[in-house]
Amino acid sequence: MSIVLGENRYGKAETRLVRVSRDGDTHSLIDFTVGVALSGDLAATHLTGDNAGVLPTDTMKNTVYAFAKEHGAGEPEEFALLLARHFVTSQPQVRAARVSVESFGWERLGPHSFQRRGDHTRTAVVTVTVEQTEVISGVTGLTLLNSTASEFHGFVRDKYTTLPETTDRILATAVDARWRHLTDDADWAKSFEGALDALIKGFVNTYSHSLQQTLFSMGSHVLRTRDEIAEIRLVLPNKHHYLADLSPFDLTNDNEVFIAGDRPYGLIEGTVTRDDVPEALTAWYQ
Amino acid sequence: MSIVLGENRYGKAETRLVRVSRDGDTHSLIDFTVGVALSGDLAATHLTGDNAGVLPTDTMKNTVYAFAKEHGAGEPEEFALLLARHFVTSQPQVRAARVSVESFGWERLGPHSFQRRGDHTRTAVVTVTVEQTEVISGVTGLTLLNSTASEFHGFVRDKYTTLPETTDRILATAVDARWRHLTDDADWAKSFEGALDALIKGFVNTYSHSLQQTLFSMGSHVLRTRDEIAEIRLVLPNKHHYLADLSPFDLTNDNEVFIAGDRPYGLIEGTVTRDDVPEALTAWYQ
Amino acid sequence: MSIVLGENRYGKAETRLVRVSRDGDTHSLIDFTVGVALSGDLAATHLTGDNAGVLPTDTMKNTVYAFAKEHGAGEPEEFALLLARHFVTSQPQVRAARVSVESFGWERLGPHSFQRRGDHTRTAVVTVTVEQTEVISGVTGLTLLNSTASEFHGFVRDKYTTLPETTDRILATAVDARWRHLTDDADWAKSFEGALDALIKGFVNTYSHSLQQTLFSMGSHVLRTRDEIAEIRLVLPNKHHYLADLSPFDLTNDNEVFIAGDRPYGLIEGTVTRDDVPEALTAWYQ
Amino acid sequence: MSIVLGENRYGKAETRLVRVSRDGDTHSLIDFTVGVALSGDLAATHLTGDNAGVLPTDTMKNTVYAFAKEHGAGEPEEFALLLARHFVTSQPQVRAARVSVESFGWERLGPHSFQRRGDHTRTAVVTVTVEQTEVISGVTGLTLLNSTASEFHGFVRDKYTTLPETTDRILATAVDARWRHLTDDADWAKSFEGALDALIKGFVNTYSHSLQQTLFSMGSHVLRTRDEIAEIRLVLPNKHHYLADLSPFDLTNDNEVFIAGDRPYGLIEGTVTRDDVPEALTAWYQ
Repeated sequence: MSIVLGENRYGKAETRLVRVSRDGDTHSLIDFTVGVALSGDLAATHLTGDNAGVLPTDTMKNTVYAFAKEHGAGEPEEFALLLARHFVTSQPQVRAARVSVESFGWERLGPHSFQRRGDHTRTAVVTVTVEQTEVISGVTGLTLLNSTASEFHGFVRDKYTTLPETTDRILATAVDARWRHLTDDADWAKSFEGALDALIKGFVNTYSHSLQQTLFSMGSHVLRTRDEIAEIRLVLPNKHHYLADLSPFDLTNDNEVFIAGDRPYGLIEGTVTRDDVPEALTAWYQ
Repeated sequence: MSIVLGENRYGKAETRLVRVSRDGDTHSLIDFTVGVALSGDLAATHLTGDNAGVLPTDTMKNTVYAFAKEHGAGEPEEFALLLARHFVTSQPQVRAARVSVESFGWERLGPHSFQRRGDHTRTAVVTVTVEQTEVISGVTGLTLLNSTASEFHGFVRDKYTTLPETTDRILATAVDARWRHLTDDADWAKSFEGALDALIKGFVNTYSHSLQQTLFSMGSHVLRTRDEIAEIRLVLPNKHHYLADLSPFDLTNDNEVFIAGDRPYGLIEGTVTRDDVPEALTAWYQ
Repeated sequence: MSIVLGENRYGKAETRLVRVSRDGDTHSLIDFTVGVALSGDLAATHLTGDNAGVLPTDTMKNTVYAFAKEHGAGEPEEFALLLARHFVTSQPQVRAARVSVESFGWERLGPHSFQRRGDHTRTAVVTVTVEQTEVISGVTGLTLLNSTASEFHGFVRDKYTTLPETTDRILATAVDARWRHLTDDADWAKSFEGALDALIKGFVNTYSHSLQQTLFSMGSHVLRTRDEIAEIRLVLPNKHHYLADLSPFDLTNDNEVFIAGDRPYGLIEGTVTRDDVPEALTAWYQ
Repeated sequence: MSIVLGENRYGKAETRLVRVSRDGDTHSLIDFTVGVALSGDLAATHLTGDNAGVLPTDTMKNTVYAFAKEHGAGEPEEFALLLARHFVTSQPQVRAARVSVESFGWERLGPHSFQRRGDHTRTAVVTVTVEQTEVISGVTGLTLLNSTASEFHGFVRDKYTTLPETTDRILATAVDARWRHLTDDADWAKSFEGALDALIKGFVNTYSHSLQQTLFSMGSHVLRTRDEIAEIRLVLPNKHHYLADLSPFDLTNDNEVFIAGDRPYGLIEGTVTRDDVPEALTAWYQ
């Protein structure tokens, strides 16, 4: 038996980039948090501390800022592809580069004035190897709520089950979704807006008997409307709203007054996919 | 010398209330985090553990939910006034009640569907004593940025000063503002919308030589446009955006590529007031 | 009626300093987060953007690092006093300086190896004016729990009260305490260790009928054992542990199985003071 | 092409359990956050909202509390195994159960008094299927620092590299480690203490030329000293400490005064394994 090095990667996490573009007096703004992770022939630094194959993580940070100047910072997927390809093609010992981008939205208030939106964060994760490319887009922090049109009943009851059945409840979740593209070339802005819209519509328009049903409906709606997307993974916390018990005060509560709970919470995770898509390059949704 | 009990208060913090109102098929939604703190004749419980004057904090929580049913949950200031008055008038040993509300905004997506906004949180803090009432409204988490129209120069230089002067920089802040009303009766919704609008306009329209100047301009703008407001306190972190040094890569950087910094940050705090307003009841802005 | 500038201050928040001292091969480590806030004659920058009286916050940050080299970074109170005095004496327009320090503890693992402790953070806040000095020490994040020896009954019951009385419950809190010193000269390390020990002993050894009683006991214990301390403010969240209802499963629960709650929580705040101490310089505990 | 349901699971996250055991007057305390996730034959609820195979997540929460009473809550691995086996054996439609536990340490202060430690969190993740069992133990939040005995040089330099080489720097990290056991039966307490000790010793005793080298050394040290462990994954942020530039103030800085940085940070991830261990059941470290 010997002890050996297994899978490994390294990089720079959370490089904070703000890129201003000036079209005369009218400015536009990009606000990204960028992560880079490289893997390849990195045994030497682990085993002996020989860094001859190690590009410093500080250099990755510099490259993010330099590329933002040289190439601009457009769509998150595009910027991530540019960076990932650079590391794989310029460093022979690097066999895969993974670049992730969180993109924070700002609403325009004037020619050079902006207000940060907080209603969702757009994400992109790109993996480039010598042979292949994989593009994952996504959204986090999109919090949705239906105040009715949600039931939950007919479930399994064992000896530890006390939950009453309900035919009217609040359904709320903070959407964490990622989707894999079929190719590495798309109209990324349009694709994201379309997917976001489909997710929201899927949530709003589903009369729900379980959050699982809503999940599948949201995912299906994205795949039906976006041909460029192969599959989608949704992670949906069930943000419980408990009916306040007002009976001790001789008050009724017809689904009007709720206790918004923090922990624990249900957590529903599922993938919706096409039956004919090529396999993913990475364990992309774990 | 003896050891004595000084100022004290107690209450329930962070009660999470969601209130749905149904107008036929069209629902509306209120999402509040409520805090209650009472003070008065509370020496016994501190000195001997005699709780004869202690209304349980659990009761305060119950009262929040019961009042949301009985009286609805309208504007944050109104709901806070209702609760605070209840505790002072119903409990003789209570001499002051302070009720705080954080109100989270949701955007309508459909008759019973909503998306949580994240661009700011509205706040209210109400203090009611037997004789007096004080209403503080506010906003937190409002993040604003001007990508130009900001200079900083002509400052003091001592032996530890290395900062270069600049005539063009990003100015960004996350506004934390609270303002004291002249009376306990106002059109709270209209007042808040007006103050928020004045804060944003004050930021956007000020050509800034210091964040202090912007602060005073924002505060003045609120007082000039809102007669019902006595004074305003602003706490403005200077969210530094450092120019990335691209010269090692033979690249220029004409205020295009910025490093968004986390810590440390400048912190500018100031009150803008009218010269003729009555004194505050509480140390309201500390 | 005119609009005027009220109270204001500005400074640099959250400067992160790590200071290593080398005594041969044996190193020691100081880990501080430092905040500086200055006030004085600052009207010009607010009203006209004239910065002639403004020492940049960047300079305050530089001064923290330079002083750590020149004077070392010893006890938090001492380092804060040094900095605060520097700003008041070197800048004529500055009339008060407030320096706050959070000190993070590290446990020694070897001559130059350390593990970060996480069981509490030591704090100091020093205010220096031309005439006076005030030193506040404190602790945050000290989480204590008694699994018995806590009762709560005999409290007020109104129409919204449903809480059952109990003669055996868990009492748990995360201590946030600050205490004001009588002078600006003390053995700060010994004083802190003594106060911390008194707080812990006060919590552990009090058979409690309310968290208020425990608060007063903790505060009194500090004042009885530490002559150099004038008064102490305690902010104690009641970290509720709810008894899990196991009766549906035909199981008893004799104070064995608890649900640790997040929100809402009771919040108990109180000052314990000596009856003969001089008044505080600042609204120090708000 | 059709749209189909892919991998999915659901469960209850972050159930907060505190379990007190009483041995006469001497109490002991367990503080766990428990997560449950089940997978199996769950298509119906996704596709049609038929919940006939869905055990409510509320029931999972109840089961955690009931099991804590019935079986006690001992070592995290043991409690997780008990729960996971229960769900797989009692629910025919469940084909895999994953139970995760975070265990928070408390230090004894007296027979029934405790202080929460904050220096690390112990973790366990157990996966049980009808045929197999997998146990992963781990630790998070263990923050370690060497103030010397760390170099970094000899690395790749490309056109974006500006980092100077160094032969003396601070090396600091917050250890996030998970390790896979060879069997589902071990002295879990002893195994954890041994692994924790090996991680710390591996960090302290490695003269480091890269954080990768330290990572491999830490992992190897665990495998060499703990026969029951098959492999270990380490995720190590490089908590950068930048040397403060004091030259503008005519001060030297011989590795004494450091700026502790937040973002960005290096992130080093690697697995150390034995060359003869059976394959893992799950993508356990992603």
